[in-house]
Amino acid sequence: VAEQQIGDRIGDALAAVVGAGQVFAGADAGPDYQHDESLTTTGRAPGWVVRPADAEQVAAVLALATEHGIPVTARGSGTGLCGACVPRADGILVSFERLDRVLEVDVANQVAVVQPGVSLSELDTALAAHGLHYPVAPGEHSASVGGTVGTNAGGMRAVRYGVTRHNVLGLQLALPTGELLRTGGKLMKVSTGYDLTQLVIGSEGTLALVTEVVLKLRPRPAHARTLLAPFPDLDQVIRAVPEIIATGRDPHILEYVDWLTMAAITHTSQLNLGIPDELRESAQAYLVVAVENNIESRLDDDVEALGTKLLELGALDAFVLDGAAARALIEAREHAFWTGKAAGAQDVIDTVVPRTAMPEFLARVRELAEAGGSYVVGCGHAGDGNVHLAVIQPDEQVRHTLLRDIFAAGLALGGAISGEHGIGTEKKPYFLELTDPATVALLRRIKAAFDPAGILNPDVLFDAN
Amino acid sequence: VAEQQIGDRIGDALAAVVGAGQVFAGADAGPDYQHDESLTTTGRAPGWVVRPADAEQVAAVLALATEHGIPVTARGSGTGLCGACVPRADGILVSFERLDRVLEVDVANQVAVVQPGVSLSELDTALAAHGLHYPVAPGEHSASVGGTVGTNAGGMRAVRYGVTRHNVLGLQLALPTGELLRTGGKLMKVSTGYDLTQLVIGSEGTLALVTEVVLKLRPRPAHARTLLAPFPDLDQVIRAVPEIIATGRDPHILEYVDWLTMAAITHTSQLNLGIPDELRESAQAYLVVAVENNIESRLDDDVEALGTKLLELGALDAFVLDGAAARALIEAREHAFWTGKAAGAQDVIDTVVPRTAMPEFLARVRELAEAGGSYVVGCGHAGDGNVHLAVIQPDEQVRHTLLRDIFAAGLALGGAISGEHGIGTEKKPYFLELTDPATVALLRRIKAAFDPAGILNPDVLFDAN
Repeated sequence: VAEQQIGDRIGDALAAVVGAGQVFAGADAGPDYQHDESLTTTGRAPGWVVRPADAEQVAAVLALATEHGIPVTARGSGTGLCGACVPRADGILVSFERLDRVLEVDVANQVAVVQPGVSLSELDTALAAHGLHYPVAPGEHSASVGGTVGTNAGGMRAVRYGVTRHNVLGLQLALPTGELLRTGGKLMKVSTGYDLTQLVIGSEGTLALVTEVVLKLRPRPAHARTLLAPFPDLDQVIRAVPEIIATGRDPHILEYVDWLTMAAITHTSQLNLGIPDELRESAQAYLVVAVENNIESRLDDDVEALGTKLLELGALDAFVLDGAAARALIEAREHAFWTGKAAGAQDVIDTVVPRTAMPEFLARVRELAEAGGSYVVGCGHAGDGNVHLAVIQPDEQVRHTLLRDIFAAGLALGGAISGEHGIGTEKKPYFLELTDPATVALLRRIKAAFDPAGILNPDVLFDAN
Repeated sequence: VAEQQIGDRIGDALAAVVGAGQVFAGADAGPDYQHDESLTTTGRAPGWVVRPADAEQVAAVLALATEHGIPVTARGSGTGLCGACVPRADGILVSFERLDRVLEVDVANQVAVVQPGVSLSELDTALAAHGLHYPVAPGEHSASVGGTVGTNAGGMRAVRYGVTRHNVLGLQLALPTGELLRTGGKLMKVSTGYDLTQLVIGSEGTLALVTEVVLKLRPRPAHARTLLAPFPDLDQVIRAVPEIIATGRDPHILEYVDWLTMAAITHTSQLNLGIPDELRESAQAYLVVAVENNIESRLDDDVEALGTKLLELGALDAFVLDGAAARALIEAREHAFWTGKAAGAQDVIDTVVPRTAMPEFLARVRELAEAGGSYVVGCGHAGDGNVHLAVIQPDEQVRHTLLRDIFAAGLALGGAISGEHGIGTEKKPYFLELTDPATVALLRRIKAAFDPAGILNPDVLFDAN
């Protein structure tokens, strides 16, 4: 009864901030607020769901949470893969669904100012009208901009355009202590104090909540070409990558797909790429190379040069896909996660290693999987060394050991546990086990500098309270 | 006597770390260790100069300094412009001159691993042999890589290639508490905990000392073209900039130079650009536009398109400079700081504003200068909104007020005090006066998370102790 009364008092205080119609007892708010797309989390109802209308309300909710020591989790579209938006049962879920406006498209400065709840597809629609483009494209276009800031989302186009942190110029932040700050701005270079923009990007909702984002834009690319090259084995694909990059033709997509993943995604998407049967049978892996340019004639020249290079590097052929087939292949590749899920994968990971270390890493992964009777298939951002693997191993303990060994192998090759998915709650045990304790201790002190009460996503990255 | 004894004991302890021949009493170490290139600092001998040979020695010096509460200042080449490497009289100056090796040029990953004492020109020589290039080019090529990390150096080529933070992939850090950490790596994307690489870049020696740097490289551009366009007034130059960027021709240099600065730099460098006298007399400002590419035919097309665009935008003409003249102009522009110094400027600043706000900002600067009887001339990175101004006003109080008002005007337009020089000690009063107190308080807490004893550059950014 006493707990119930305290709960009601918190609910009333939240209603005073965001309005009675925008606070829900967690169990009443529905299952959408309980999970992300991680394969390993189980849904959980929060204490409260609040839907603030503006930055001031977000800050006031945080001040209240700090005062009462209540955990707070932010939620954009809920498309994350590591549990970072799964709320605590005793906490507040701050949903950004009402902060969903593109505030400004500044054509002359090539900058957009948006609220965090805007989805990447909504953003793209707004930018298309101005001939502009935001080049960061993780597979899921329904992802919110705020969510991409939280995970430092990458995606296929990173090989040319970088990841979220290279394309965000400024933020408005609500601190756990209730202040609102602005960082950066419509500025391409700043050297005026520590870069809080960069520190918050990739912090997975543990340092501050993002209430506004300034994005760097580019002219919208008018023309693109996609090459698909089947190879007799995966190592040859991976070894081709540095050579393709060294041509200076600057592809914006450079993806590898192993034969099983290709079979699964083309089957699932009913995709006919026009590859002759005998070729498809001898191909063990594929490289997808795409280039784009505003000047079409340059593309023909690029495609010619890249096609010749691919054959030199051992490709069985190099197909230039027509626009519809190219789009379908990219979409199918973006949905590889869902293909993996449908195929019964119990987990997906996205370890990153130096580009040239991919063959060694993948060989090690095969060894580890075989030794434990597990099945690991994949595809990935070959240009970035970012290897996406679907892991099929029903036994939880065997799977945990396999994942730890895979991550350790990546780290031994100079890599990191995650290139773009983040750590969240689901990769936290591996992160804490495999990261230098001095680094973890420093990250904890930085967390405390932002969030002295430890209210923001206390189960993410480390156990803050 | 007691102080002398303590001093000797510290000197002995430092000698035990770095070797007796690598520790100097500050006054004996010579004037080179006492200053940077700021116009407003006066030289100061440190208590001790130490020259460590490796990362472990740097870390041990820091552990010793934390134990005894002794301030520590790092020094690369001493080419900074804000006093950030000027030592404290009671402190230790850590000179990185012996950490001067290019440890690895990894061609396949397009990455270099270097020690912080390597200069940009030494780095460039090492990379040229491999056909690779590090695109960050602040005006001073003798700057050390460590120094460019400290200030997040930018320079002319940032409009296309970004600044230091967009081209550094990883660091080895010595923490004030004596631990050595590695951050990032040969990785294009990482989402595994807070990005310490980014946090340390631009922190001006206040958070940690950098003992190794992983740099992202690009294919060395084989061909370049430079256009010089005189305009009847400066506002037209500045208004042309977004239009040039919108062409998508991706210039790597987009600089404006006002007529007085052009006269001074061409005079100082005895540079004849072949501009007819009558044109030179009617030109109030110049735009320099340069493009580079590995495929030469594309450049001719770019130059044609940009030349036509410049004339449409009001340029009096558009000259394609020959290679020697182009190099001489760029070099002269890089030395504009020295021209300003020679002309008697008492200070230089590098405020950054949104690109399109430059006309309004420059108009406000003219008003403020005239009102106070001061003289302000400049040039700058027009593509980045980064305005370099030489300020001629001998009265210190009048100059201080003018600078504060200029910075405030930049901030009011959405800008920042410094785009690339940093804050150091010399811009600190303005930074503390004009920055949101909640931001300063947060930066102080971050500083304390790294440096609990407040030993690292305690006079830089804020007064840490």
